[in-house]
Amino acid sequence: MAHCDRIWRNARLATFAPDRPGIGEVDNGIVAAKDGLIVYAGPAGDAPALDAADIVDCGGRWITPGLIDCHTHLVHGGDRAHEFELRLAGASYEEIARAGGGIVSTMRATRAATEAELVAAALPRLDALIAEGVTTVEIKSGYGLALDHEIKQLRAGRRLGRERPVTVATTFLGAHALPPEYADDADAYIQTVADEMIPAIAAEGLADAVDAFCEGIGFSPAQVDRIFSAARAHGLPVKLHAEQLSNLHGAALAASFGALSADHLEFLDMDGIAAMARAGTTAVLLPGAYYFVRETKLPPVEALRAARVPIALATDCNPGTSPLTSPLLVMNMAATLFRLTVPECLAGMTREAARALGMLDRAGTLEAGKRCDLAIWDVERLAELVYRMGFNPLHARIWSGR
Amino acid sequence: MAHCDRIWRNARLATFAPDRPGIGEVDNGIVAAKDGLIVYAGPAGDAPALDAADIVDCGGRWITPGLIDCHTHLVHGGDRAHEFELRLAGASYEEIARAGGGIVSTMRATRAATEAELVAAALPRLDALIAEGVTTVEIKSGYGLALDHEIKQLRAGRRLGRERPVTVATTFLGAHALPPEYADDADAYIQTVADEMIPAIAAEGLADAVDAFCEGIGFSPAQVDRIFSAARAHGLPVKLHAEQLSNLHGAALAASFGALSADHLEFLDMDGIAAMARAGTTAVLLPGAYYFVRETKLPPVEALRAARVPIALATDCNPGTSPLTSPLLVMNMAATLFRLTVPECLAGMTREAARALGMLDRAGTLEAGKRCDLAIWDVERLAELVYRMGFNPLHARIWSGR
Ligand SMILES: [Zn+2]
Ligand SMILES: [Zn+2]
Repeated sequence: MAHCDRIWRNARLATFAPDRPGIGEVDNGIVAAKDGLIVYAGPAGDAPALDAADIVDCGGRWITPGLIDCHTHLVHGGDRAHEFELRLAGASYEEIARAGGGIVSTMRATRAATEAELVAAALPRLDALIAEGVTTVEIKSGYGLALDHEIKQLRAGRRLGRERPVTVATTFLGAHALPPEYADDADAYIQTVADEMIPAIAAEGLADAVDAFCEGIGFSPAQVDRIFSAARAHGLPVKLHAEQLSNLHGAALAASFGALSADHLEFLDMDGIAAMARAGTTAVLLPGAYYFVRETKLPPVEALRAARVPIALATDCNPGTSPLTSPLLVMNMAATLFRLTVPECLAGMTREAARALGMLDRAGTLEAGKRCDLAIWDVERLAELVYRMGFNPLHARIWSGR
Repeated sequence: MAHCDRIWRNARLATFAPDRPGIGEVDNGIVAAKDGLIVYAGPAGDAPALDAADIVDCGGRWITPGLIDCHTHLVHGGDRAHEFELRLAGASYEEIARAGGGIVSTMRATRAATEAELVAAALPRLDALIAEGVTTVEIKSGYGLALDHEIKQLRAGRRLGRERPVTVATTFLGAHALPPEYADDADAYIQTVADEMIPAIAAEGLADAVDAFCEGIGFSPAQVDRIFSAARAHGLPVKLHAEQLSNLHGAALAASFGALSADHLEFLDMDGIAAMARAGTTAVLLPGAYYFVRETKLPPVEALRAARVPIALATDCNPGTSPLTSPLLVMNMAATLFRLTVPECLAGMTREAARALGMLDRAGTLEAGKRCDLAIWDVERLAELVYRMGFNPLHARIWSGR
């Protein structure tokens, strides 16, 4: 008889275990946890002899892995609601800039805030994610755009993981935009990011990965190459904002560095897909940004599927292009706008999102040895999680077995 | 000194009162309620002498009228999540029909349910609306498609208004779809609706209005004319699902009956707009359905504005084309997809929605004499209600002064 801390019984499971087809459905399933880890997840009939002081009858409810939001800019100062309002009222680009709009306004507000203020501002957003079953969230820097402020953002991200029962992965995104101090010299800023910021941030252990924004209005592939080389030199995995507004072949560049993921990808081409497939780089699709900026070019879902590139989904929660804090709505948008299937949507916010964070050994599926992160849902069919809009049927959320 | 029951002070108000421009903004405002009605709403400095046992300091928060969802099919049996899943997986129309999909599946589930079961199924959806500040909701029948079942649906709607602190307006939508019993004889069904159902439902006082679905796949203008004539004969106002998929000139027909509203309207033409403007018929836009069915034809917002047709918004909550229970998301979709301004979105879920229900004398604005229905928001700017996606900053909701 194996002793464990807690057992959830009488549940339907979507394990997403690789040895089961599709979502890894188990009809009469149990999950058992000890010391925060899953010790068994599967059919009740196949379970070893288990006991626990705490046995939860799930009443036939569905259990999925806790949701994972693998691409967010959750920590930032201010918001851009006024800019949104002005644009709808017909304001010109100049009028919005004069009213303090654009990414520079978020940079200013982020620089002006203390770490504690950034944490306080991000907590309601994090709580909204948690309320829909999120147990792991990635949080990028990239609004400080100067070493001290980038460090402050990353520390705020780490702090959020102590303020709430949630796993936080931080990503250094110094190459997000060009700060005004370097207005005419992007290469000099990139040199600062590569030669000063990455070493300092790596030394403090503040980032789990390094990201960049590869775009005509962002940084060139040659500049991204410098960033990624510095990341590699400091042992940090990379990911990339690529092919969102145009095709600079960023995904292929990222793949050549063995990137965990390339994100957005509306303008991704077949060469990029082939490179991602070879490298095992995950495609992170961000339908909230697609929707919010009224993009019309769809990411190449069919070709990604055909090439067996893993597809993850995320909120891209950010004040400029995706002020979105609902992973359930992300799944609905991925289905409605991108035509992902229901199993693809569910895998995209669990197993594939873990893969995009390099965490598949620890999270993303219901398998023995992984952290016991669960979302328990009051639905008849899991398809309801994707089908409904603005409805949250979460019954309970478990992080690290609690 | 006037005695009242409760005073909300230190608030910013969006009164939507017609004597104030735009949203009727009041910077340092108070609202006072007595016997469930507003006795004063406006600047603190202009208020008469008031006292109350219960004085609430709003801490500078925003107060809007309680939100009004003026077009829903909230009461229905079953859902269509499985159909949604099958369609994404590439199932053909025949396969979906064989799996029991389509509106007939909702009709069957609605007919099979008892009134209590319909209430129980609708309550979580109603609670989702209430959680985002809704104080008035319209609920249509239209899935029974036979007198007893239509009556059961309308009674379930009325019952919801007793189960929760919310005002329910019911609408009889017998002419929603053709039931299988009349498969080859739509005129005979329309005759039943007009000559049997409407008189019976009017006699029982079960409906506040009569609606129909005027469309190639619904009912013809001539058939709608019969329904509306019967409604008029029984003293019931009318509204119409019009111009959603094609232009049958339903809005003009509705206007000729002095309809409260014409709803959907993607294919509305200039003649229809002119007729609505003359008749004072409100345009109810339903961006959730537009989004969910991936419509590309936009409703003529610019022309509606130019003609000064009032524009309301609603969830259209229904299992087939808009499984949506978030009025905040409706506003975001109206702004993002239809380019409504922030004030238009806010008015669309308050004052104009009250107008679409013929309730503007009782609800929809913060004015003395109206029911004290309030939504109190934890935001800096009201634009945040429209800008964010999947985030609910409701601080408190007041219905009838409580
Ligand atoms: Zn991003
Ligand atoms: Zn409808």
